[in-house]
Amino acid sequence: MDPAAAFEPERFRREARAVVDWIADYWATLESRAVTPRVEPGGIRAALPAAAPEQPEPLAAVLADLDRVILPGLVHWQHPSFFGYFPASTCGPSILGELLAAGLGVQGMLWATAPACTELETHCVEWLRNLLGLPERFAAPGPGGGVIQDSASSGTLCAIIAARDRALAAHAGRPLVAYCSIDAHSSVEKGLRIAGIEAAGLRRIPLDAGGAMDATALSAALETDAAAGLRPFFVAATVGTTACGAFDPVSAIAAAAGRHAAWLHVDAAWAGTAAICPELRGPIVAGADRADSWGFNPHKWMLVNFDCHVLWVADRGPLTRALSMKPEYLRNAATEGGAVIDYADWQVPLGRRFRALKLWLTLRMLGAEALRRHVRDHVAWAREFAACATADPRFELLREPSLSLVCFALRAGDEATAALLERVNAGGTVFLTHARVAGRYAIRLAIGGAITERRHVMAAWQTIAASVP
Amino acid sequence: MDPAAAFEPERFRREARAVVDWIADYWATLESRAVTPRVEPGGIRAALPAAAPEQPEPLAAVLADLDRVILPGLVHWQHPSFFGYFPASTCGPSILGELLAAGLGVQGMLWATAPACTELETHCVEWLRNLLGLPERFAAPGPGGGVIQDSASSGTLCAIIAARDRALAAHAGRPLVAYCSIDAHSSVEKGLRIAGIEAAGLRRIPLDAGGAMDATALSAALETDAAAGLRPFFVAATVGTTACGAFDPVSAIAAAAGRHAAWLHVDAAWAGTAAICPELRGPIVAGADRADSWGFNPHKWMLVNFDCHVLWVADRGPLTRALSMKPEYLRNAATEGGAVIDYADWQVPLGRRFRALKLWLTLRMLGAEALRRHVRDHVAWAREFAACATADPRFELLREPSLSLVCFALRAGDEATAALLERVNAGGTVFLTHARVAGRYAIRLAIGGAITERRHVMAAWQTIAASVP
Repeated sequence: MDPAAAFEPERFRREARAVVDWIADYWATLESRAVTPRVEPGGIRAALPAAAPEQPEPLAAVLADLDRVILPGLVHWQHPSFFGYFPASTCGPSILGELLAAGLGVQGMLWATAPACTELETHCVEWLRNLLGLPERFAAPGPGGGVIQDSASSGTLCAIIAARDRALAAHAGRPLVAYCSIDAHSSVEKGLRIAGIEAAGLRRIPLDAGGAMDATALSAALETDAAAGLRPFFVAATVGTTACGAFDPVSAIAAAAGRHAAWLHVDAAWAGTAAICPELRGPIVAGADRADSWGFNPHKWMLVNFDCHVLWVADRGPLTRALSMKPEYLRNAATEGGAVIDYADWQVPLGRRFRALKLWLTLRMLGAEALRRHVRDHVAWAREFAACATADPRFELLREPSLSLVCFALRAGDEATAALLERVNAGGTVFLTHARVAGRYAIRLAIGGAITERRHVMAAWQTIAASVP
Repeated sequence: MDPAAAFEPERFRREARAVVDWIADYWATLESRAVTPRVEPGGIRAALPAAAPEQPEPLAAVLADLDRVILPGLVHWQHPSFFGYFPASTCGPSILGELLAAGLGVQGMLWATAPACTELETHCVEWLRNLLGLPERFAAPGPGGGVIQDSASSGTLCAIIAARDRALAAHAGRPLVAYCSIDAHSSVEKGLRIAGIEAAGLRRIPLDAGGAMDATALSAALETDAAAGLRPFFVAATVGTTACGAFDPVSAIAAAAGRHAAWLHVDAAWAGTAAICPELRGPIVAGADRADSWGFNPHKWMLVNFDCHVLWVADRGPLTRALSMKPEYLRNAATEGGAVIDYADWQVPLGRRFRALKLWLTLRMLGAEALRRHVRDHVAWAREFAACATADPRFELLREPSLSLVCFALRAGDEATAALLERVNAGGTVFLTHARVAGRYAIRLAIGGAITERRHVMAAWQTIAASVP
């Protein structure tokens, strides 16, 4: 292909239709596929030619290889019976937004480099803030605001950097200490590592009986450290832990963090989406009015395709002071005028895709009501599944279901439960993953798929129940 | 829209065709558009409704708003007369790859979560390594390997983290010092900040007459710091600086860094693509055989749409030791078998899109020969443009053109040059940006657009020449 032909509108029109058809056909066949593949390490590479081609190949050859090599080597995350990890679901409108972003090919690092990219982002995260019922302190315009990042890991890292630099500006010299629960996501520890906070500078606070952070233990740890001359600078609370969906008591945590002027970050990566339903919102946004930052992933349960994390901050100052770089070549009148947001100053990378488009298309083409229905259905089905497990004397719930997440085990013990999970997943009709809950090996059923229906959840239960030896 | 309908194959087929047509029509009209918009801060937000809709809206309404609100507020980065910053070009096949990644919706954080996503990535970056003529030490399988990240900023940050932790493991207690030239990209300083290396820990090495790092000055700085009990741990060399495309002398830098066991990272973000042409490769890959890490952006000049940065490391050990986290819920047999790559351990975020697809489709559907032609054309046109500027007594080149980048100024001085750039850009038919080169205000012409032709470059010269008062 000539390089110019690679951007030829009529050629793109033709080839993109073929790809759209390929995707639509893939979706139509999803349910009939095994959720997980049977491949050995190296098997896919062995099926590919050793060198890149010198001459152009037709799209048909690529699509044939997708069918031949790639599809048999994938876990089908969009399969209706994918209940592993937290699902990262997508939908048509979101994909159209991603496609538009790629087709426009603009860089939103500064307002000046793509004003509409910046403003649509500010606008859509403000729509989201209102849908979730998050407090005014995160609103833009204002001292705070929201930004789209790739993942909760990156959002948490940015919160850590802002907190670290704010603390060092105030109290340089005292060793910094951060706090999160034993069940906080690994990205908190990873973010601290990246930020150069020694492993010794992280306190893992024990859990209460429900799997949430023990706020009394946090309070005691903060007091002890402050009395020892250390500087508590960062507390990460989790709303919806990965293991079992527990909700840390954010209000009590905020009170404790506030006594030491520590930055409070709330990680609602998965559960955040459920705050669009007023009846589920309470424990999710509780204490957000005292948080310095709050993040969640529309790419988990809100049907926006990965990557789409939204991070809000109550005060953008510490964030942009930590992350803003304005070398000569990026200087421009709009930035100097001070009336614009330059989102490169709110994140690690300089460049940015036009990610607001996929949020915009999803919110507009589905509408808020449909998104609420999506969440409510999953929560209801999780309760139904939990009732099945409760009614079966071989099983026990390790926690009450949290939103759309159910953690259960065989009464026969960890080994039997692990063996059951392996047997269930080996069948290929359903996929679940595991965690440790209260020291026990737990199977997790996480409902969140775009095309998952009640019948898939019930079939998962049947498969699991039938797989007990 | 019902949530389930949002994933309905026939609906997607129909709506995606409309979006494809919209994009194709946009491309067809690109040349007739002003490259930059006329908008005031806040103007786009003011044109959008205050709240997200409760009920679904049709795609047609969204596309109408794209035309009405978004397009008039964009800098058109894919316009053939966009010569600003470094272009971030795209092409049809790359967009199809992005679309496929969104349609598949898999998560490649671990080999086990999407084996083909991981292996196609390893394979494509290995194709690239061979196309660029990079040394075996970066090959996979082997102790090293390559990974796709979002941006050079993130790749450089990962190199810094790996270097920092390697140095601390060997020499904890000695203050760390990093080195880069005055003209190194701002992401080096930003990465060091994020990593918690104090600003005092960065030495900005002066430039030689050509704008490259003065290796003798680097050597002296390293000696001085080591003698003072500091620990030189990281040296960033730039191959193709942002300001003027200068090439740091990587071999000499490697020798100096090697004497102090400092990590050598090479940032070839923009120029790296040109290494696919054997006649241009020499100075780009020189010294790479002694570098610890080497990165470039296929999303700049190789027609792969943003985001696509490739980072190679000679030894993955320090990188994955610094960035690997394996909480219980991610443990799996493949990881424990040790025969697979888990790319989450090579980057900041946990989640990952299937970015290898866009690299794969671009390489296959264009073929290496066409990509070389693309680069060679741009280099030839830059020389032609430079010849025009040289022949006009009002202008002077501030450097010899570097690949497809030309830095020039009016002999009348900085103020006149800045005013000229403003006048040229205000016309809307062409877009260029500026930098400081050898203390002078320079206009930069960076050629890299997918549909830029010789005539656009010549027209840019005519516009510029005609805009001198």
